[in-house]
Amino acid sequence: MDRRGVLRSAAAVGAGGAAVTWGAGAAQARPGSRERAPGRPLRVHIVVFDGVEELDFAGPLEVFGAARTVGQQVETRLVTSGARGGCTGRFGTRLTGVGAWDPGSADVVVVPGGGFADRDGAGVWAEIARGRLTRALREAARPGLTMLGVCTGVVVLHAAGVVGDRPCTTHHRAKDHLRGQGADVRDARVVDDGNLVCAGGVSSGIDGALWLVDRALGPEPAGKVEALMEFERRGTVLRTRV
Amino acid sequence: MDRRGVLRSAAAVGAGGAAVTWGAGAAQARPGSRERAPGRPLRVHIVVFDGVEELDFAGPLEVFGAARTVGQQVETRLVTSGARGGCTGRFGTRLTGVGAWDPGSADVVVVPGGGFADRDGAGVWAEIARGRLTRALREAARPGLTMLGVCTGVVVLHAAGVVGDRPCTTHHRAKDHLRGQGADVRDARVVDDGNLVCAGGVSSGIDGALWLVDRALGPEPAGKVEALMEFERRGTVLRTRV
Repeated sequence: MDRRGVLRSAAAVGAGGAAVTWGAGAAQARPGSRERAPGRPLRVHIVVFDGVEELDFAGPLEVFGAARTVGQQVETRLVTSGARGGCTGRFGTRLTGVGAWDPGSADVVVVPGGGFADRDGAGVWAEIARGRLTRALREAARPGLTMLGVCTGVVVLHAAGVVGDRPCTTHHRAKDHLRGQGADVRDARVVDDGNLVCAGGVSSGIDGALWLVDRALGPEPAGKVEALMEFERRGTVLRTRV
Repeated sequence: MDRRGVLRSAAAVGAGGAAVTWGAGAAQARPGSRERAPGRPLRVHIVVFDGVEELDFAGPLEVFGAARTVGQQVETRLVTSGARGGCTGRFGTRLTGVGAWDPGSADVVVVPGGGFADRDGAGVWAEIARGRLTRALREAARPGLTMLGVCTGVVVLHAAGVVGDRPCTTHHRAKDHLRGQGADVRDARVVDDGNLVCAGGVSSGIDGALWLVDRALGPEPAGKVEALMEFERRGTVLRTRV
């Protein structure tokens, strides 16, 4: 099966709203709730893979890392979809010592994108064709786990059956594709659908992560992170469950 | 000598305006000029080191990488200040296969920051105390080379004697320090002083790199990169040589 075939097949899991559900309406996954259990750090795992776009993962890593700098209990970890290892980003960044897939010990899993325009290169299409990451994401879904899709990472999440027909967003160049797959793609920089939060293209991942800091830890830490990073979120977060 | 002593000593190189000069007023270093020689790619080297802040280097890497994506001739390379090797970022990102220091083959050298608040940890203070990066930067200065200091990378550039009393900016928490060292610290997100361009804290590096794309390659590619990244530069670039 070629990659497009694999994609259609994988995406079909989530077609027509038959997406994996993992307590989307549960209280702990609602906006304003706290992913973090009392007394325990917020544990954020960021998936990386060959062809991952550097800012897609580094933006959220910076935000959650800076949250720790401003005094919050937050742990960040880069992870692969398999064993501990390494990978090379879209712009040549070679990562090593990346942690093994272990979503059971995560409160938030961040899925960045990369390589959407390059059907035959490294990146989201290769990951979808390979199937390991999509399978891992599908099996990771559980009550209490929030997934943050960044940029074309949302395409991966859709192929994993995690998005289905839920409200979401993605990189502007991938919106038509996702709509064609049955997703309810909205025009917002960040869309919060409870345990599925999606950010638009590349730099929007910073906004998406800041929103999760706000939602999980409060607006004060989020504001401190913004000040530290000399960044301000833009646009209305489209919260579907208010 | 303790680190503060080393710093004062190193910074003294640039005190009182006695900074290294490398053709700051030369035509090829003026805003609006082209760093890129005709027919040759714009060659961007981004220095990384233990404790480097992830977004400080990943932001500019993304911008210059995206410039290639939108059709510009741009080469990006992560480099150390010494031999080919690796390092670990402030938030745990382990980089490997990082290129050797070779500024003679660069048109732009980007110097990110990191760890300014942590006097005894990895980051800019350790790099300044060690002296290899500062020496390398001082010796790299030559006509035709533009240096882009990002965040507290400007503190490193000052310790290298590259900033002296020239107009610059840095992370807001490092401004008092730099002023105390004799730098002409301005309140702008990006300050362009010809062959020395400085960006403020963390995310400002994206703006600084976008400005350099604009200056070296033109506003049209810069706008395309912004669109691709779903980012817009903010604030007036303080250009001192117009």
